[in-house]
Amino acid sequence: MTHKIAILGASGYTGAELVRLIDQHPNMEITALSAERKAGRTMADVFPHLRHISLPTLCKISEIDFSQVDLCFCALPHKTSQEVISALPKNLKIVDLSADFRLRDPEAYEHWYGNPHTAVEMQEEAVYGLSEFYRNDIKSARLVAGTGCNAATGQFALRPLISAGVIDLDDIILDLKCAVSGAGRALKENLLHAELSEGYNAYAIGGTHRHLGEFDQEFSKLAGRPVKVQFTPHLLPANRGILATVYVKGDAEKIYQTFAAAYADETFIELLPFGDAPSTHHVRGSNFCHIGVTSDRIAGRAIVIAALDNLTKGSSGQALQNANLMLGEEETAGLMMAPLFP
Amino acid sequence: MTHKIAILGASGYTGAELVRLIDQHPNMEITALSAERKAGRTMADVFPHLRHISLPTLCKISEIDFSQVDLCFCALPHKTSQEVISALPKNLKIVDLSADFRLRDPEAYEHWYGNPHTAVEMQEEAVYGLSEFYRNDIKSARLVAGTGCNAATGQFALRPLISAGVIDLDDIILDLKCAVSGAGRALKENLLHAELSEGYNAYAIGGTHRHLGEFDQEFSKLAGRPVKVQFTPHLLPANRGILATVYVKGDAEKIYQTFAAAYADETFIELLPFGDAPSTHHVRGSNFCHIGVTSDRIAGRAIVIAALDNLTKGSSGQALQNANLMLGEEETAGLMMAPLFP
Amino acid sequence: MTHKIAILGASGYTGAELVRLIDQHPNMEITALSAERKAGRTMADVFPHLRHISLPTLCKISEIDFSQVDLCFCALPHKTSQEVISALPKNLKIVDLSADFRLRDPEAYEHWYGNPHTAVEMQEEAVYGLSEFYRNDIKSARLVAGTGCNAATGQFALRPLISAGVIDLDDIILDLKCAVSGAGRALKENLLHAELSEGYNAYAIGGTHRHLGEFDQEFSKLAGRPVKVQFTPHLLPANRGILATVYVKGDAEKIYQTFAAAYADETFIELLPFGDAPSTHHVRGSNFCHIGVTSDRIAGRAIVIAALDNLTKGSSGQALQNANLMLGEEETAGLMMAPLFP
Amino acid sequence: MTHKIAILGASGYTGAELVRLIDQHPNMEITALSAERKAGRTMADVFPHLRHISLPTLCKISEIDFSQVDLCFCALPHKTSQEVISALPKNLKIVDLSADFRLRDPEAYEHWYGNPHTAVEMQEEAVYGLSEFYRNDIKSARLVAGTGCNAATGQFALRPLISAGVIDLDDIILDLKCAVSGAGRALKENLLHAELSEGYNAYAIGGTHRHLGEFDQEFSKLAGRPVKVQFTPHLLPANRGILATVYVKGDAEKIYQTFAAAYADETFIELLPFGDAPSTHHVRGSNFCHIGVTSDRIAGRAIVIAALDNLTKGSSGQALQNANLMLGEEETAGLMMAPLFP
Repeated sequence: MTHKIAILGASGYTGAELVRLIDQHPNMEITALSAERKAGRTMADVFPHLRHISLPTLCKISEIDFSQVDLCFCALPHKTSQEVISALPKNLKIVDLSADFRLRDPEAYEHWYGNPHTAVEMQEEAVYGLSEFYRNDIKSARLVAGTGCNAATGQFALRPLISAGVIDLDDIILDLKCAVSGAGRALKENLLHAELSEGYNAYAIGGTHRHLGEFDQEFSKLAGRPVKVQFTPHLLPANRGILATVYVKGDAEKIYQTFAAAYADETFIELLPFGDAPSTHHVRGSNFCHIGVTSDRIAGRAIVIAALDNLTKGSSGQALQNANLMLGEEETAGLMMAPLFP
Repeated sequence: MTHKIAILGASGYTGAELVRLIDQHPNMEITALSAERKAGRTMADVFPHLRHISLPTLCKISEIDFSQVDLCFCALPHKTSQEVISALPKNLKIVDLSADFRLRDPEAYEHWYGNPHTAVEMQEEAVYGLSEFYRNDIKSARLVAGTGCNAATGQFALRPLISAGVIDLDDIILDLKCAVSGAGRALKENLLHAELSEGYNAYAIGGTHRHLGEFDQEFSKLAGRPVKVQFTPHLLPANRGILATVYVKGDAEKIYQTFAAAYADETFIELLPFGDAPSTHHVRGSNFCHIGVTSDRIAGRAIVIAALDNLTKGSSGQALQNANLMLGEEETAGLMMAPLFP
Repeated sequence: MTHKIAILGASGYTGAELVRLIDQHPNMEITALSAERKAGRTMADVFPHLRHISLPTLCKISEIDFSQVDLCFCALPHKTSQEVISALPKNLKIVDLSADFRLRDPEAYEHWYGNPHTAVEMQEEAVYGLSEFYRNDIKSARLVAGTGCNAATGQFALRPLISAGVIDLDDIILDLKCAVSGAGRALKENLLHAELSEGYNAYAIGGTHRHLGEFDQEFSKLAGRPVKVQFTPHLLPANRGILATVYVKGDAEKIYQTFAAAYADETFIELLPFGDAPSTHHVRGSNFCHIGVTSDRIAGRAIVIAALDNLTKGSSGQALQNANLMLGEEETAGLMMAPLFP
Repeated sequence: MTHKIAILGASGYTGAELVRLIDQHPNMEITALSAERKAGRTMADVFPHLRHISLPTLCKISEIDFSQVDLCFCALPHKTSQEVISALPKNLKIVDLSADFRLRDPEAYEHWYGNPHTAVEMQEEAVYGLSEFYRNDIKSARLVAGTGCNAATGQFALRPLISAGVIDLDDIILDLKCAVSGAGRALKENLLHAELSEGYNAYAIGGTHRHLGEFDQEFSKLAGRPVKVQFTPHLLPANRGILATVYVKGDAEKIYQTFAAAYADETFIELLPFGDAPSTHHVRGSNFCHIGVTSDRIAGRAIVIAALDNLTKGSSGQALQNANLMLGEEETAGLMMAPLFP
């Protein structure tokens, strides 16, 4: 059976990435693509790398007949997303890639995003879309909230450790290195090639990045008490890839064994041999996440490093993985393509 | 039926690219991977981006039981390739990615490569592997010689025009822009990141690049008389992609119509709307070739631009396309993945 | 004696580059920096790499007391530039970096720029700012028009050859490779890192690039008859650097000798040994232009390659060189810094 | 008075960088350049970006008449450096850029570098070349040992804080992001453009990087008791630049004031406004170091970020600064060039 798929907000990078992946899915067909400002144009015009694929012309959301849609990916900006999703048919399966339904607490949402949530009941209903950890909930969910890409990376590197109680919960430092596509196709000065290539810097320093809302929510829930991590993202001259270098206090061997047990059956999580350092080069364009663990020369300290592609495993690949779960498809369908290297 | 595949020279970029592609092929299984100097190591160790794939350990060629192999890709350096292939079973299907069997004329080979050919009879037997133009010969071939990546790009931009007689054969200029992976994984100073990024230069200037041997052979054969093109490659700070800007004398509209007719049924060749300029961004990691045609302000001149990924359509993707033809598989099997952008 | 310098439009790349260069000039002091939309901010805020330099706060043009200015660099967009310059004191020395005063013919200006010129008499008065070829005129000029960066590169590669009559004037092809800073700090999708890095494409194809106006004017004047070149620029993933690969018909040795004679006394023009290919890597951040000549395997053809930094020799460095001439300073003052490599 | 300068090991990046800088020095003249394997070639041949400078031909060290040399920069690999320097005239002023004389303790040297030191008495005599902190010792030194580039960056971010006792000495984490030129011009697979561009990874993880020897020595000396920092370097796709993100426990305001006092009179150290994040973009090619301080949302934590150019302030610029001190020149001579941006 072929599922009919709509993508709202198809003119951004996550929209294009969804098309790229779904094109390889055996049982999905894209029947609607929306882009308000580019409605009427073809996807080939907006993203020439997709020109060999037969696709519907970009349209406005209001033009979509949702009765003909089995599942809808929503790749809109936050705030817009909650408005649009509120107005969609109540029985439509939805995977939202925005930030709007990641946080369960309306106050936390307002704190991190600066505006009150206007669809509080749906916020409650939504399932957090970190597939490996919410698999069963996602299977029966109607609305799944894709995670932040940095938030996904940090959680792959920390959730099993927090659950197992093998690290000091009060001294966790995440130093993230992020590629530029995580910022989307927005026209901002610091995203220009001339400003970004050949250099790097931290941003949202001091604990101000919005993905902290997700870390706080998820880690506190896991630990059964408040957990606050220190998180500093850096913008790097590359297009895809997040590398999280996580500094923890705990026994490195025990940490490694914890990961080995937690991820033993996970197709997309690759635990490297002890002491190996993962690289974003080796996950580019794929749905895989590589994790490495090493001990430090200072006793009682360990370093966990996680690498994934922000647009795939961190966003659109995760979304497709979730859609597979929701539709009863093989979880890995359309997602087994190897990384592109070099 | 699953075909058993061997890859000789698996530790280079074209070898890794073959593994990446074949991993998505429905009817192929890799049963042997050779790498003389890295024999005994795993592919995951040499190319960590492939670590999620079950693969045989790297071995020496002498360790392979070729009676268990249906088709062998040979991704060895030229000269080594002819030695190795001469010694392989005579009924084994082979796709060679080196330069050794591209030229029919032993003298031309010696002129461009500096050493006499040691397998002259096989040189004669080999079929030139430009799939779109030698399709029928390839289907029944035992030994197919993959083309040079620059040579492929230039030919996609010129063959139909030479066949149709719509351009001046004595005034063809190919200005090529090439990414660095075309040079392989060789340790050379000019391939270092610090030497290459942020700048560019021409190389092999003055008509000294070896792929001219292929242009001369193929274009002269098509035209039925000697054709010599002027060809200047440039090395650019990118990992994948060849852009050929071809300056020809002829009527641009007629040229466009010639392409439209020649490539109407070709899955992998995309002719852009008249006046559009292709970009290597839009073919990266894929087997597609984009072609654009425009007229110049100077009457009687046209510009043809072709873009492809040197490792895929220019090399390993082409090789797989040829293997599909030789094995009676769907020509596009394993090759329909969309380009990776951004 | 220290000259008082104003820079109008200091918040763009050419403005910042002027500050970088003038900072090393022994006899210049920057007394005013304008940026209409960023007036009131410091240069350190807009360009943190200049924060160690004592500079006036950014202001509006209307706030500048031009009676205290010896020479004014105008780094404004075209059209704005002619309006602003018309209103400046008539005795003020001006080096304009925009396109507004490059063309002598008002019709040519309107043809290439799409709007009628509003300061036609100044257009006539202005001297074309290619320092090496208009040195004497520049010395006594009040208004000097900086050349286009592509136009400068092409002219260094062709002017001596056209003057000497050693190439076929009807068959000149310029294939240019340009870095992204030539497009300025504008917020355009194709200038984003995610869109530009790792790929390349031609633009303004078919003879539509505005710098053709300069080529037509200058080459026709030199030849004493109309000369039209074919010119195709390409956008490359680098921040600085133009490489012009110029295909000409003529004797390569004669061409080389012509350059050797023409540039024998030029500090900033380096003629490489015959057969060597210049690289933008080797001129980055400097006022030098490297030129290489080689013959092709096809008799009677030659390739001339020129490399320069579009922001320095192609724009702000050229502007300072011209200012030095106008102010009676050493022509090379502030301009002898070596390129930055790697 | 013009000082006669020799550079040993001129064919590497730090050698070329020294030439670039000294070329702008008012009182230095390069009289000898050595490169054992490239002896007989010109510097223009090895580094074409320096071709406009009149320089001696590369020679062997044995060919240099050191009686005609006032100061010698030694840019050789470690181990070679101690052998060569031992054999130089005992009264010759030397600035060594290798690791050989950075550590005072022969056992520490052997621990980190794997071989016993063969010039132990000179190891004792050498002055540690961190100009801002050893200024007076350097002025009277005969042999100055340039610091590691990562070691310099980390020390600029930490020395004043350790001296002032405003941070917890037992919980210092340095997450460094390093550009590729720090690895020199060596032919290694991971330094190839195709392997490095578009991705990143940690290396020398777990406290194994050699620059830890310097941190241990210097920080323990400052604190008057053993101090061990946790240090993880990352290799990034850029050519120049180190960004140190340093996680400390202490009061951010107090930390900021400590820096303000410590660096008030330092020309090359720029303390950014509180809360600003420095970027390697803004120091590229210059001798400046930018430092930023911010508090974290977690009370009692602060983040210090330092950015510098590894080849300039981290190596050759530092070396020239030290040479100026040793020769009684203005400390900033030849070093005031603004960074290159973009």
